Amino acid sequence: MADFLQPFEIRQYPLPVEIEPGAMLVKVEIAGICGTDVHLWKGQLPIPRPIIMGHETVGIIDRLGEGLETDWTGVPLREGDRVTWSAGILCGSCYHCAVIRQPTRCSNRRAYGISFNCDEPPHFSGGYAEYLYLRAGTAIFKLSDVASEAVTGAGCALVTAIHGLERMGIRWGDNVVVQGSGPVGLAVLAVARSAGASTTIVIGGPAARLKLAKAFGADHTIHVEEIPDASVRRDLIMSFTRGHGADAVIECVGSPAVVPEGFEMCRDGGKYLVLGHYGDAGGTQINPHVITRKQLTVYGSWASEPRHMAAAIEFLRKQGERFPFDQLISHRFPLDRAFEALQTTAKWVSTKSVIAL
Amino acid sequence: MADFLQPFEIRQYPLPVEIEPGAMLVKVEIAGICGTDVHLWKGQLPIPRPIIMGHETVGIIDRLGEGLETDWTGVPLREGDRVTWSAGILCGSCYHCAVIRQPTRCSNRRAYGISFNCDEPPHFSGGYAEYLYLRAGTAIFKLSDVASEAVTGAGCALVTAIHGLERMGIRWGDNVVVQGSGPVGLAVLAVARSAGASTTIVIGGPAARLKLAKAFGADHTIHVEEIPDASVRRDLIMSFTRGHGADAVIECVGSPAVVPEGFEMCRDGGKYLVLGHYGDAGGTQINPHVITRKQLTVYGSWASEPRHMAAAIEFLRKQGERFPFDQLISHRFPLDRAFEALQTTAKWVSTKSVIAL
Amino acid sequence: MADFLQPFEIRQYPLPVEIEPGAMLVKVEIAGICGTDVHLWKGQLPIPRPIIMGHETVGIIDRLGEGLETDWTGVPLREGDRVTWSAGILCGSCYHCAVIRQPTRCSNRRAYGISFNCDEPPHFSGGYAEYLYLRAGTAIFKLSDVASEAVTGAGCALVTAIHGLERMGIRWGDNVVVQGSGPVGLAVLAVARSAGASTTIVIGGPAARLKLAKAFGADHTIHVEEIPDASVRRDLIMSFTRGHGADAVIECVGSPAVVPEGFEMCRDGGKYLVLGHYGDAGGTQINPHVITRKQLTVYGSWASEPRHMAAAIEFLRKQGERFPFDQLISHRFPLDRAFEALQTTAKWVSTKSVIAL
Amino acid sequence: MADFLQPFEIRQYPLPVEIEPGAMLVKVEIAGICGTDVHLWKGQLPIPRPIIMGHETVGIIDRLGEGLETDWTGVPLREGDRVTWSAGILCGSCYHCAVIRQPTRCSNRRAYGISFNCDEPPHFSGGYAEYLYLRAGTAIFKLSDVASEAVTGAGCALVTAIHGLERMGIRWGDNVVVQGSGPVGLAVLAVARSAGASTTIVIGGPAARLKLAKAFGADHTIHVEEIPDASVRRDLIMSFTRGHGADAVIECVGSPAVVPEGFEMCRDGGKYLVLGHYGDAGGTQINPHVITRKQLTVYGSWASEPRHMAAAIEFLRKQGERFPFDQLISHRFPLDRAFEALQTTAKWVSTKSVIAL
Repeated sequence: MADFLQPFEIRQYPLPVEIEPGAMLVKVEIAGICGTDVHLWKGQLPIPRPIIMGHETVGIIDRLGEGLETDWTGVPLREGDRVTWSAGILCGSCYHCAVIRQPTRCSNRRAYGISFNCDEPPHFSGGYAEYLYLRAGTAIFKLSDVASEAVTGAGCALVTAIHGLERMGIRWGDNVVVQGSGPVGLAVLAVARSAGASTTIVIGGPAARLKLAKAFGADHTIHVEEIPDASVRRDLIMSFTRGHGADAVIECVGSPAVVPEGFEMCRDGGKYLVLGHYGDAGGTQINPHVITRKQLTVYGSWASEPRHMAAAIEFLRKQGERFPFDQLISHRFPLDRAFEALQTTAKWVSTKSVIAL
Repeated sequence: MADFLQPFEIRQYPLPVEIEPGAMLVKVEIAGICGTDVHLWKGQLPIPRPIIMGHETVGIIDRLGEGLETDWTGVPLREGDRVTWSAGILCGSCYHCAVIRQPTRCSNRRAYGISFNCDEPPHFSGGYAEYLYLRAGTAIFKLSDVASEAVTGAGCALVTAIHGLERMGIRWGDNVVVQGSGPVGLAVLAVARSAGASTTIVIGGPAARLKLAKAFGADHTIHVEEIPDASVRRDLIMSFTRGHGADAVIECVGSPAVVPEGFEMCRDGGKYLVLGHYGDAGGTQINPHVITRKQLTVYGSWASEPRHMAAAIEFLRKQGERFPFDQLISHRFPLDRAFEALQTTAKWVSTKSVIAL
Repeated sequence: MADFLQPFEIRQYPLPVEIEPGAMLVKVEIAGICGTDVHLWKGQLPIPRPIIMGHETVGIIDRLGEGLETDWTGVPLREGDRVTWSAGILCGSCYHCAVIRQPTRCSNRRAYGISFNCDEPPHFSGGYAEYLYLRAGTAIFKLSDVASEAVTGAGCALVTAIHGLERMGIRWGDNVVVQGSGPVGLAVLAVARSAGASTTIVIGGPAARLKLAKAFGADHTIHVEEIPDASVRRDLIMSFTRGHGADAVIECVGSPAVVPEGFEMCRDGGKYLVLGHYGDAGGTQINPHVITRKQLTVYGSWASEPRHMAAAIEFLRKQGERFPFDQLISHRFPLDRAFEALQTTAKWVSTKSVIAL
Repeated sequence: MADFLQPFEIRQYPLPVEIEPGAMLVKVEIAGICGTDVHLWKGQLPIPRPIIMGHETVGIIDRLGEGLETDWTGVPLREGDRVTWSAGILCGSCYHCAVIRQPTRCSNRRAYGISFNCDEPPHFSGGYAEYLYLRAGTAIFKLSDVASEAVTGAGCALVTAIHGLERMGIRWGDNVVVQGSGPVGLAVLAVARSAGASTTIVIGGPAARLKLAKAFGADHTIHVEEIPDASVRRDLIMSFTRGHGADAVIECVGSPAVVPEGFEMCRDGGKYLVLGHYGDAGGTQINPHVITRKQLTVYGSWASEPRHMAAAIEFLRKQGERFPFDQLISHRFPLDRAFEALQTTAKWVSTKSVIAL
C-alpha cells in the first residue's frame, strides 16, 4: 500500500516509433478527473502500478495505424481529427460478451487509465499525459460538432447513466427520484428528463450542484444537509408523488446507507437502480420483506459499452443547450498540476475537474 | 398480544338465511395450513380478531346467490359442484389495480382467512370451518378433473410461485437455484422445471423434502444441515454451473440471511427473486456494490391474482403426474383438531398439513 | 344503410330527474370531432341508432350522484367543476380485463358516442349535445390547470398515441418515422419527442399540418404530394438515418398501403406500430420474408385505458407549452352546425374541428 | 441461371497443407440436407458458384490450427474429437453486431455451405464433402454425449426455433399453434413444450410428420389435406382454446398465405412469429386493421447465433429422450448420391435426409 495515497510524479516515456495496424496515437487535449480515479488512488480497486490514470479523454489524432480508416460509427478518420473513445476494450467472444450478452463484464476487458502498467510499452495508456496510444479494437468516435468540454464534463458519468437507465428501463411519465447530485446524478437527471420523466426530484448537495440540477430541469431538490433526517426526506418524496412514492429511484451516491432509504421512496411495484456503487464501499442493512411486499425490482448496472458512448455523443450534440454538461467543469489544471486536480475531486471541492493544456 | 399464541376454540355461528346476489355458501371439504397461518397466529401481521383462519380451501357449493351462474373462467356453476377460489378479493379500480396494474397490492384487498372478523356476519370467512360464505366478487374456480388434495397440497405456494416467476421471467434454458424446499420452494421448482429450466438445484431440508425435490426433477439437492457452510454451498453452485453462477436464484425460505448468500450464487447479469418474505422477518446485511458489479436484477413478488389460480389449476390438471402436489400432504386432521394441525406446521413436523372431514 | 350518410338532426330528450349513485350529469362545454366519427357516420362500424356521437368531450358538473366524491385519481369533485372522462367503460373482470390484461378489448366495453342508443334513457350519451349523463364506473378527471381546448385538441388522438407507444416501447434515442400528420400523427410525434426520440421524421400533408409537425419538433417532414414516389420517400428516410433505417416507424394514416412502405423504412431489428387502423380500410400486400429477414416486430394497439387519459392530462399540464395541442383546433362550430363540423373533418378541411357553445 | 437446377458433380480439391492459427480441418461424419439448400439450388438466394452446400454438419477433428485449444464453451479440443459448429461467422463489431445487437444480421456474416466459392482456397467450406476447413472465428462445439444423428436431425431447424421463440418470448402456460410440421415446426413444438406451453396444436402434414408431432407431445394435430378449409381450421383452434384463440402462433411453413390465416388464430393481444420465411416466397394480402383491433404483436426472426447452438446441444443432451430428434432422419445417402438426397427434400419425400459415410 506504500505507493498509494502518494502524490503523482511526472515521468518521461519514449513515443512509439511505429503505430500498429488498427491502432493510433493521439495528442491529449483534455482529460477528466473521475471519482473512480480517487478510489484507484486510494488503492480500493486492484490495479497495476505504475499507472497513468485518466479514462475520460479527448485528443487529436497524431498518427493513424494501417487499416484504421473510420471511427466506430463509420465516419472517416484523418490525422488532426478530434476524437474520444470508450475506455474499455471488449473481446466480443467470451461467455460474458457472446453467451449472456453482458459485455461490460467481458472476461478480457481492459480499460485505459485502469488496466495498463505504464512501464510496459506502449506506455501511453491513460489520459493524464501528453499522448495516448489507442490499441486496435478501441471504439473511437470522431467529434465533429460537440465541444471537448461537453464530452469531458459529461465524462463517464453520462455513459454510465445511459447504460443504467437502459437496464432499468425508464418509462415516459415516470416520477423519478435521483439520490445524489454529482456528475452521475446530474447525468441521470438529464437522461431521465429527456426520456419523458414526469416529476423529477434530486437529493444531494452542495448548493452549487443542486443549482445545476435545477438548471437541468429538476422539479424539486432536497439538500441533505438541510434535511438530514431520512424520514423527513421520505415524507417529502411522498408529498411530491401524491402519497404513492416514485416510479423509479436511482442511487448515484456510492454510500450504502442510501439504498434502504431509497427502497422506502419507491411506490409499490417500483424500480430501484444501484448505479453509484462502482467501488466497494461496504455493506448496509436492508429488509428483504420490503422488496417482497412492495414488489420492487432492484437493478445493478456496471460501466458501459461503446454503443452508449455513441448515444452520449449524439445526445450532447442534439440536447447540449438543454443540458449544458460543459458547465459541470468547475476547475481546470495543467498536466503538471494533475495531483492538485485529483485533490479537488477527492475533497469534493469541484463539481468536475479536468486537466487541459 | 394476550389472545395470540393461544389454542383455537370451536365457535358456533348461525348460517346465513339468505345468500346475497353474486355470493355463495360452500361446505368446506379440505383446508390447507399455510406457513402464513403460523405467522398470523403469532401476531406477526395485523389482523382482526376473532378470526377463522384458512385461505387454501376446497368446498362444495351449498347455495348459490342470484346471478352467480359461472365461475371465473366462464364454466357454469351448480349446487353440488366442487370449487376453490382466490383468497383475495380485489377492487379493480384503485391506484394499484388500475393505474400501476399491481393488483396484488390493491388498496382495498380483503382475504378470506386473514381480513374478516368472524363475530360479524356473515361470520364464515375462513377455511378452518364447516362452511364458508364467498362474497360477491370472489374469483371462483370449478374443479372438474383435479383432485382436492392436489389443489390443497399446492395451496397458495403454487400461485405464489407462478406469480413470482412471471415477475422475474424464467427463461427456457435458465440454470436455476431454489433456496428452500418447503411448499413454496417445491412449487417454484415445479414451475421452473416445466418452464424449461436447464440445471435445477434445491437447497434446503429436511431429507424428506429434498427427496420430494428429487421426485419433482431437481438435478441436485443440497442439505443445509449437511453443508452448513455458505461458502461451500456457493462453491457447489459454481461447480454445477461451469463456474459462472446460476441464471436465476429464487429465495423461498423467509430467512433474511439467505439473501446475500443468494446474490453470490447468481451469475453476472443474473436475476434474484425474493419470494419467501411474505412475513417481516427483519433485516440483513447486503453489499450494494455486489448488485452493481454483477449487474443483478432483484425482484420482489407479493401474493397472487386470480389469473394465477386459473393457471395453477390448469397446471395441476395437465402436469399432475409429473408434479404430484398431493404428495406434499403429510398430515390430515379433523376440524376439531385444527390447532394440532397448526402445530405440525409451526414445528416443521409436516411437509403440508390439512384439515379434512 | 338508409340512415347513414344523412345530415344530423336536432332532437330533444328530457333530462334525467334523478342521478343514480356513482353517476353524474355534465353540461357539455366543448366536444371534438374525431376521424372515427366520420367512419361511424359512413356506417363502417356497427353502432346502434339513433345515436348522439362525440367521444372527446369536456363538460361542467351539473349534478353529482350519491357516492361519487372523487375523480379517478382521488381528487374531490364538486358541482361546477370542469371535467373530462375516458370514453370507454370497462368491466374489469372479463377474460380480456382480468386474465390477459388487455382491458381495451374488454368484452363488455361500452363507449360514449359509440355504443348507446339515444332513444333509450338516460338518452344523453354522446358529446354532440348540451348535456351528457356519465354512468357509474366512468373514469372521470377533474381539469384544474389544463385548458379545455388543449384537452379537446389532443382528443382521443393523444391517449391513442400514449397507449400505442407504451405497447411498442419507445426508447430513449430511437430514430422515429411517423407516417401521417393528422391528430394521431402529431400526438405520436409529441410523445415520441418527449420520450427522448433522437431524429424524428413526419410523412404527411397538407402543409399546415407539416408546419405544426415542425412546431412540435420534427427534424424533417416529407410532404406526400410533393414526393409521391414511395421509393424516393424510403431513400430520404435512409439518408436521415445513416443508411440503416429507423428504429421505429409508426403508422398513423389508416391507409393499408402505407404498411409495406413502412416496413421498408425500418432498420433491421426495428419495430413498426400499426396505430391508424381503428377502422377497417381493407387489405394490402405484404411480404412475410421482409418481417423474417429484417427481424421486425410489428405491433397493434387499440384505443386506450383510463390510465392513459390520466397520463395525457398530466402531459398537457406539464408540457403544454412545448406541445400546444390547442393549436390543432382550426374550426369551431355551435351545436346546431354539428353536421357542418363533421363535414370539415370528413373532407380534410380542418386539422381539428370542435363543437363549442 | 444456367447452372441452377442442375445435378451436383463430384470435384476434387487439394487438402490444405497448413492449418492457419485458430482454424481447423475436420473430416465430415454426417451432413444434413436443409430446405434452404433446395432454395439455394433453385437460385432463390444470391450465392457464389461453384459452391459446396451443407450448413448442418458433424465432423471429426483432423488437424488443429495453432492457438485453437478450446471449443466455444471452453471445453478443451483434441484431434479425433467429434464436433459441430455454427454455420455463420460473425464479425462482432459492425452496426448490427455491436450497436443494435442483432448479430444474425451481421454486415460481414459468412456461412459455411452458403457464402464461399469452393474454387478458391481453402476450398472445403460446405458439409457435402469429405472434409471441411473451419476458419478462425468459427464457433465450434465439442459433442461429448450427444449423438451425431440427434444434432443433424435437429439441424438448423432447432437453433432457428430457439432463436425465434427467444425473440417472441414464449411464456409458461401459453396456448401455442404451430403452422407447419417440417423440421422447423417440430423443433418449435419441442422448444415450446419444454418451455411450459399449455395446449399445443400442430397444423401440417403429411401423416408421418404429424405422428412425430404427437410423439413430441402435441395435444392436437390438424392435417391440412384433410381439413383444407382455412375457416374450419380456425374454428378448430377456437374450440381448442375456449373460443379465445391462441396466445402464440408460430409460422413454420414458408408459404405466405398462412400468415393472414395465422393472425385469425391469435387471441386478442396475442403474438405471431414469422419464422418460416428464410426464403423470399412472395407476398400475401393482410388486413392491418386486424393487427390494430386484435392488438397483435408480430415478430420476425432470422437464423441464429452461436449461443443458440450451445443451448440446442444442451437441450438435446438433457431432453433427447423426450424429443428424439434423431428420428426425424428418414433417409441416409452416401456422398456420391448427394443430389439424390437433395431431391428427397425438394420433393417432400423425406422428413429429413442426411449424407453420411
